[in-house]
Amino acid sequence: MGIWFTEKQTEHFGITAEIKRTLHTEQTDFQKLDMVETAEFGNMLILDGMVMTTEKDEFVYHEMVAHVPLFTHPNPKNVLVVGGGDGGVIREVLKHPSVEKATLVEIDGKVIEYSKKYLPSIAGALDDPRVDVQVDDGFMHIAKSEAVYDVIMVDSTEPVGPAVNLFTKGFYEGIAKALKEDGVFVAQTDNPWFHSHLITNVQRDVKEVFPITRLYTANIPTYPSGLWTFTIGSKKYDPLEVEEERFHEIDTKYYTKELHKAAFALPKFVQDLIK
Amino acid sequence: MGIWFTEKQTEHFGITAEIKRTLHTEQTDFQKLDMVETAEFGNMLILDGMVMTTEKDEFVYHEMVAHVPLFTHPNPKNVLVVGGGDGGVIREVLKHPSVEKATLVEIDGKVIEYSKKYLPSIAGALDDPRVDVQVDDGFMHIAKSEAVYDVIMVDSTEPVGPAVNLFTKGFYEGIAKALKEDGVFVAQTDNPWFHSHLITNVQRDVKEVFPITRLYTANIPTYPSGLWTFTIGSKKYDPLEVEEERFHEIDTKYYTKELHKAAFALPKFVQDLIK
Repeated sequence: MGIWFTEKQTEHFGITAEIKRTLHTEQTDFQKLDMVETAEFGNMLILDGMVMTTEKDEFVYHEMVAHVPLFTHPNPKNVLVVGGGDGGVIREVLKHPSVEKATLVEIDGKVIEYSKKYLPSIAGALDDPRVDVQVDDGFMHIAKSEAVYDVIMVDSTEPVGPAVNLFTKGFYEGIAKALKEDGVFVAQTDNPWFHSHLITNVQRDVKEVFPITRLYTANIPTYPSGLWTFTIGSKKYDPLEVEEERFHEIDTKYYTKELHKAAFALPKFVQDLIK
Repeated sequence: MGIWFTEKQTEHFGITAEIKRTLHTEQTDFQKLDMVETAEFGNMLILDGMVMTTEKDEFVYHEMVAHVPLFTHPNPKNVLVVGGGDGGVIREVLKHPSVEKATLVEIDGKVIEYSKKYLPSIAGALDDPRVDVQVDDGFMHIAKSEAVYDVIMVDSTEPVGPAVNLFTKGFYEGIAKALKEDGVFVAQTDNPWFHSHLITNVQRDVKEVFPITRLYTANIPTYPSGLWTFTIGSKKYDPLEVEEERFHEIDTKYYTKELHKAAFALPKFVQDLIK
């Protein structure tokens, strides 16, 4: 029945997708990188055997990482994306007219290179003049930044391999320092079905650093369980108290201003994880 | 790596789950029935190769089918479930103290039999004295019912095989007739990622029969794309206008009164399907 890619999302469960052809395979300095053309989801970026993004469903993750914090902050001008070398979050950030500068700090230059080549609809925004692309360690970039950013987005891989430092309390403290006095931070924090402890731990750590901490979700078909979480830490602005008139028109396929609020209404078992 | 069950959810994409053992396999008069013990999701009921329910994630589907219409109706006494032979929807229906009688009409008695045997935490409620279990054709049961039910729930398989009649306008007209003058109806209507046309068509048909028609979603890890939709048709009560004091305490793992409303905030691409 042809060639199929299978990701074991847990030891005992996974997804499987038919591959038309492999576009690129490489062991980079940081991880195994595969770019494949799938029959169902278009081109797909795989890092260390885990689906990072696909042409068909990428908009969910990228819109929901970007627009929730950017509408929470009333005037985001200077934005940092840690990780996110595929460029999708940057593309969404640039839809906000207040943004003057968007810095991308991606540790693995190969992710940028092959995303530009094989995911142009996602990575194309990296060539925008407002964007500063730095191939560097996000943890170190944060450590040396002070009161610089309005919004910081952590678009990392899972907390194994190169991203392990990005799920520590020390990192969240660094982010708080790198943000201005009214800054907002968001990170992807995995799924509640198979990684419930991670969500509980991150929520506890972020709460110790930020006065306003909240969890929201989105549906991403190619991510484990299809239910993804994002944790927001904010110094001043509450994502649940964005005045109606602050939502400006924006071209999206998933995010809406109604969903901005609804995404924080958690299933009971997810609420219980962060009590 | 052991024995794995794979469901091709589309021609080119699927899920795969490790199986500890097969509990029962049978070609019934209506469909292929497999009951397996999985390593990740506990016992799993599979009909015609498609996952119907699992012990680990069943609560999402069953709670969201049942509680949204039952809280929408101010005083549901007489409830009908079409399909749903595993008993999960009935279990949730019985959590509402106003319910005096719950009728289950399942076409395949083998689904009931093996759910009682291997999914007792789901099917146990079928033995409750308020429950009338009928092994019969749901389409015919609806055709001969008039102004009987307060709430009707269609917990069917996909619109292939035995359930094909349950996705027709004629069936929705029959449901409207079988409901009392203020009745509420809900049906599972598949996912927007791979079956968008179905959602559009059902919404159009239900709108022609019911004055109030709405779509809501829930996350179900073992169902295609993880994002499932439910279509409500209502003669009088709007599921979005349930007064706060009408929500009574209820023991759930997914449903909350906040989620009741939030589940109707649709992703933009899903909104567009039902415009």
